[in-house]
Amino acid sequence: MKLLRINVADQSYGYEELTGDDLLLGGRGLTNKIITEEIPAGCDAMGRHNKMIFATGLMPATAVSSGGRLSIGCKSPLTGGVKEANSGGIVADSMAKQGLRGIILEEKADKDSLWVIKIENDTVEFIDGKEYSGLGNFALAKKLFEKYSEDYAIISVGPAGEYGMMGSGIANTDMFSRQSRMAARGGIGAVMGEVKRVKAILIPRKGKSELPNRNKEAFKKARVAFNTCIATSDRPKAMKKYGTADTVMPVQKLGGLPTRNFSEGTFEKAEDISGEALYELIQKRGGCGRSWEPCMPGCIVQCSNVVPKANGEELVAPLEYETIALMGSNLGLGSLDEIGELNYIANDLGLDTIELGGALGVMAEAGLVEFGDFEGFKAIVNDVYTGGMQGRIAGNGAGHAGTLLGVRRVPTVKNQTMSAYDPRSVKGTGITYATTPMGADHTAGLTVFVPRDHHDKEGWVEISRNIQITRALYDIAGICAFVTSATAMQPELLRDMVNTLYDREETIESLNQMAIDLMMSERAYNVKCGLGKSTDRIPEFMKEEKLPPFNVVWDVTDEEIDAMWEDQE
Amino acid sequence: MKLLRINVADQSYGYEELTGDDLLLGGRGLTNKIITEEIPAGCDAMGRHNKMIFATGLMPATAVSSGGRLSIGCKSPLTGGVKEANSGGIVADSMAKQGLRGIILEEKADKDSLWVIKIENDTVEFIDGKEYSGLGNFALAKKLFEKYSEDYAIISVGPAGEYGMMGSGIANTDMFSRQSRMAARGGIGAVMGEVKRVKAILIPRKGKSELPNRNKEAFKKARVAFNTCIATSDRPKAMKKYGTADTVMPVQKLGGLPTRNFSEGTFEKAEDISGEALYELIQKRGGCGRSWEPCMPGCIVQCSNVVPKANGEELVAPLEYETIALMGSNLGLGSLDEIGELNYIANDLGLDTIELGGALGVMAEAGLVEFGDFEGFKAIVNDVYTGGMQGRIAGNGAGHAGTLLGVRRVPTVKNQTMSAYDPRSVKGTGITYATTPMGADHTAGLTVFVPRDHHDKEGWVEISRNIQITRALYDIAGICAFVTSATAMQPELLRDMVNTLYDREETIESLNQMAIDLMMSERAYNVKCGLGKSTDRIPEFMKEEKLPPFNVVWDVTDEEIDAMWEDQE
Repeated sequence: MKLLRINVADQSYGYEELTGDDLLLGGRGLTNKIITEEIPAGCDAMGRHNKMIFATGLMPATAVSSGGRLSIGCKSPLTGGVKEANSGGIVADSMAKQGLRGIILEEKADKDSLWVIKIENDTVEFIDGKEYSGLGNFALAKKLFEKYSEDYAIISVGPAGEYGMMGSGIANTDMFSRQSRMAARGGIGAVMGEVKRVKAILIPRKGKSELPNRNKEAFKKARVAFNTCIATSDRPKAMKKYGTADTVMPVQKLGGLPTRNFSEGTFEKAEDISGEALYELIQKRGGCGRSWEPCMPGCIVQCSNVVPKANGEELVAPLEYETIALMGSNLGLGSLDEIGELNYIANDLGLDTIELGGALGVMAEAGLVEFGDFEGFKAIVNDVYTGGMQGRIAGNGAGHAGTLLGVRRVPTVKNQTMSAYDPRSVKGTGITYATTPMGADHTAGLTVFVPRDHHDKEGWVEISRNIQITRALYDIAGICAFVTSATAMQPELLRDMVNTLYDREETIESLNQMAIDLMMSERAYNVKCGLGKSTDRIPEFMKEEKLPPFNVVWDVTDEEIDAMWEDQE
Repeated sequence: MKLLRINVADQSYGYEELTGDDLLLGGRGLTNKIITEEIPAGCDAMGRHNKMIFATGLMPATAVSSGGRLSIGCKSPLTGGVKEANSGGIVADSMAKQGLRGIILEEKADKDSLWVIKIENDTVEFIDGKEYSGLGNFALAKKLFEKYSEDYAIISVGPAGEYGMMGSGIANTDMFSRQSRMAARGGIGAVMGEVKRVKAILIPRKGKSELPNRNKEAFKKARVAFNTCIATSDRPKAMKKYGTADTVMPVQKLGGLPTRNFSEGTFEKAEDISGEALYELIQKRGGCGRSWEPCMPGCIVQCSNVVPKANGEELVAPLEYETIALMGSNLGLGSLDEIGELNYIANDLGLDTIELGGALGVMAEAGLVEFGDFEGFKAIVNDVYTGGMQGRIAGNGAGHAGTLLGVRRVPTVKNQTMSAYDPRSVKGTGITYATTPMGADHTAGLTVFVPRDHHDKEGWVEISRNIQITRALYDIAGICAFVTSATAMQPELLRDMVNTLYDREETIESLNQMAIDLMMSERAYNVKCGLGKSTDRIPEFMKEEKLPPFNVVWDVTDEEIDAMWEDQE
């Protein structure tokens, strides 16, 4: 297992071997180690001291279901703190086949340069990529596949990343050569696009990953147990049929569906944009439509989908719950076609649909566009391509839009837009938003499927904490969070895979502690960046404004929040 | 001495008597006490928990030269931390004549309201001020003087404050009924205009201030000694002739004059905008022009001026060095007429000319306007009146403009624009920018007149620290910083005035410790707001980019900065 360091200022590079305990540095564990040890906390996230780390998990290309997540980390220009965002697709597997656990981009490139970096057979090639400047992710991938063949997986940024927008993410190739798997959050696309001036990284898909373990059979047995658990579990099955969109109606029922810039918790057209509606639309239209599809080989969950237009051609793939809420109900849009079209453009631009949806909601509240005005929103999003002013406002996130426009109902934590669970109605996820080092981020510890009163704050700190530990562990392992609904109750399954793959004697406790230590390290780094406990806060308006229709407020106290990690810090 | 608390939500009010040691809470001391004890550090600066404090110093209306400064404090929406901004004019004297040491605005007003508050004879009157909505400070004052007579001093906000812009300040009446004395910094106008919905506060000018001391003769003697020291000193005399504009050429010589968004340290047209040029222009044009003028009765320094147009009518009053640099050389504008006109509009809008100049510089770097294009800049500034998009970008400060426009050369500390001393060439003032709790602010500890090598960092930490202590003490006393060039070397002068006025037995040491304790309290509050040592930093680009023509960089280390207060924290 190797780390590849690439200096974008002088185009030099070098490899390092990972050994010993460092072999357990996967995904978010590896990104955090490089960030905390090598990126000065006080540095300018858009300056030369920031680094960008791409890390596989612990078991890519091993036929572990959903084990091919790619973690991307840096100091976040959006939050100003530690950042890891991860995505599916085939990049992590491809890296593993090149013997790579991690790729690190260092230094700042000349601002007039733009690079395509090809990594193959221990060789790094810098290719002038200026001809691709301004291209969306889809047009870019098409050109690169034409030139280099579809034998490569691509990591890329769209125009939003090139412009250095704070809402920009990084796109990765899925197993059907779609450039639509977004490591979306925290403005990481700005670091790749503007600081590193890297338009795309190409890595061959083919090859064989060398496993580090001595006992292949033991690992295989552990893997089969893990995969079987997923295959026989209920929740993954539900996701297969409806995708993550199956979350719309439950959250609507809780009164936590972000609607018209988080001013309401239910949307009158929720059924029209629900998982059921999406399933019916796909079935009815046929064509390229698919209600379930994997993003990486071997995934059992297959939460993804392909949404067809009326003529059967592809509208967008996949369409996910958080996008449906933030770019749908939050904007007063009740049509899956409209949401899907905006989603496609956002993917092409390389924008985080959560951050973009948050910003558009703020812009609508400011009167720049009407809630429900699809053409108006579309014009703003398209304005990003040319760096127009409306596009810049939308592309830099809800926090900045709020300041500029004088809107104070801004749904952010650490300047990052929260996703599709209003904290007033989904207390546990609100606690996650507040306490995760990442800024408002449901993936750090989603609580909405825990069968318990979500309006009553009692007990949710403990639940959020436990889910955050599990999620962090899976982020280290590089395994998709969507399997945890099946596997989290049987932690020995993951333990056995780690031990048999890496010849370790980890316990459930030692693995959990590794996850806790990771988060404590991230939090300590954040403190050095200025993101201490005072930033572990849900926005004040949510304490003051009752959320219709249940008229709930954010009532978890600062003391309750601050107590979460006090035994570890 | 009384505190008046006004609740803008229900229009109630009440008085409290200040007694004992609290009588030494003047100016920044009083604003800090209310902020740290009553405003939750974690609160939304634009929410109902923020308070706005207006405080006189310790000796307003006592014929102490320059003793009528008005401190205005709140949690800053721009920096997110503690904020005190002060200004000259006649408001503090007028408050003292009403027996008021402080006025505190509490709670959040209905967003559709807009109030004029009249404070007279222990009675507070809320007057519907909606008819004044959108008016600039000058048109507003004209209407209020017409209606209520010029017997009132006014505290007011322009459109920028009503819009809640982060660059908005608060205007106060000078002794010639000009509404042009700005407590400018930190976005405090946004708190008054948007949160409190107070367009103006009226306080009668007439009346007599009751002094708390028993021995009138002893105080008189101390006051005469203090005033005589100022009257016989050199630097105040120089300021009288040229105003603060006499700083242009010395800073140009140091290579520290902010030019074209802090990309250069000298300006080819510096002589055209120098104190000497300003003096000549005023003398030549005559008319209403005056090269020296006090802003408050009894001021010996008289640093102010009245700049006439070619036809002899008033262009702007006063025109100060920081405006000349930030709105002149920093924008590539080399005409005092052009700078003066922009200054007048900014005053009318109620915008901080430093923050506005910083934002306009960033906008020019982004290509929204050309450096040197006066009409272009004027159009942007005028756009603030209607809340247009260009106006909003300009009105919300350099930090936000940089994010929106993707400009990374942003001259801010704690998100507040630094003033007219590039830290690379004026190291001591850079250290002040970094370490004062206020965000980049030269008034907290200006070092440029210390005769010593300003490019070499040696020794400046200690000098900045000592000046900051003196400045903080004068901010408590409510005496203008401009007298300290005369009086700081004789600290017994201020000590004797404090002791004779308040029947105290303070020593030079105890007064200095009071100033240090104030700053440590402000710093501790900032930490709770998330503004810890990691924010005591000059922007990274100043470490990386050499400043022409001397090619100096910011080379003071983080450790040197962090050591400044470590014996006190």
